[in-house]
Amino acid sequence: MDTQLNVFADFDPELSPLHRQCPYLFLGNIDPDLQYSVLQQVERPRFVACDTMNIWIDNKRESLLKPLQKIDLLIINDEEARMLAETANVLQAAKKIMAMGPKRLVIKRGEYGAIMFGPLTIFSVPAFPVEDVFDPTGAGDSFAGGLMGYLANVGLEDEITLRKSVVYGSIMASFNVVDFGVKRLGELTFTEIESRYREFFKITFYGDSGENNAMKFDLLS
Amino acid sequence: MDTQLNVFADFDPELSPLHRQCPYLFLGNIDPDLQYSVLQQVERPRFVACDTMNIWIDNKRESLLKPLQKIDLLIINDEEARMLAETANVLQAAKKIMAMGPKRLVIKRGEYGAIMFGPLTIFSVPAFPVEDVFDPTGAGDSFAGGLMGYLANVGLEDEITLRKSVVYGSIMASFNVVDFGVKRLGELTFTEIESRYREFFKITFYGDSGENNAMKFDLLS
Repeated sequence: MDTQLNVFADFDPELSPLHRQCPYLFLGNIDPDLQYSVLQQVERPRFVACDTMNIWIDNKRESLLKPLQKIDLLIINDEEARMLAETANVLQAAKKIMAMGPKRLVIKRGEYGAIMFGPLTIFSVPAFPVEDVFDPTGAGDSFAGGLMGYLANVGLEDEITLRKSVVYGSIMASFNVVDFGVKRLGELTFTEIESRYREFFKITFYGDSGENNAMKFDLLS
Repeated sequence: MDTQLNVFADFDPELSPLHRQCPYLFLGNIDPDLQYSVLQQVERPRFVACDTMNIWIDNKRESLLKPLQKIDLLIINDEEARMLAETANVLQAAKKIMAMGPKRLVIKRGEYGAIMFGPLTIFSVPAFPVEDVFDPTGAGDSFAGGLMGYLANVGLEDEITLRKSVVYGSIMASFNVVDFGVKRLGELTFTEIESRYREFFKITFYGDSGENNAMKFDLLS
């Protein structure tokens, strides 16, 4: 196992005036020094999310802490969360990572779903079940893209909007994995996305908060 | 890795007249021939669930198919589902297992939650996140017990009741794993169970079915 940075080894982007105005910023998993440099160039971002990966967690932990302290949301997978927090349990890992600075944290768990941590909240959601996974390449970036796209579309960052954005992220990833690369996303329509959202709701719905569960506990407790 | 059946090796239970009247029957993961014998002794069970394990899937597959054709619900973990169906993908495995006869199937996925398959429905739900897992022994039976207990308490077997029963199963398992054996369950109160159900609802809630997601797609699609 080896990571070759290729063109990213000497990449040092200078943003155009237009890109400096970008309200929704997603920092892909490049060198955290570059992430920070890009973040500094954007004038007044409304919402900043950030990804990272094993190579930076291992080799540039100090650099990584800089963007982490300035972002609204860190989106990483469970393996990266364990590496970053140096602990196996997802709740313990989340607490440690939240203490590093991000306002929120999403831990992606592949076919098992995702879990989002806020200052006072936890949101856990399964993945959309996919029968024929063909190529998982790009699932993480599809997830982040769906999440950011939904936030940008709605223009809110409240708890429920963020939870829905995680669902949209999960849905975009579920489309992405059924074909090679991003082929499926290229031919995807908004109608298909909305249809899968409703399907996903049906798959995860289990009624109200339990006040009406009709449990006959009175005589027992 | 080795399974010693111990007292179960020569176990051949004969049910009392009272137990033959049992409306809610859960067949634990003993020899499927014994499961079938117990099932035959119960006169008119209202709801029958069944567990199994690797040793029977490997060595007594033919025997196992007999109870499977008579039960309302098979509750197994993901590893057992893969063994039984001889396929890795959870959706493909579920289709194969449903074709073996059970009316419904719950696949438990440990810390990741559970997924229930009905004739026409799928229900997927995460696990209640637990920070300090001490001893997972008995988590599966706690899950089944919580599920069956909720069904017996409510007296219904509709889709939503069954979905809620999976949540109660998951909640009972989440209590069970924090202490040795079934110690925590022995001191558990109904108030704690209901409180965790409401907490679970908060953790999994993300609003409505998406009709009101306020997506501005009109100009785009």
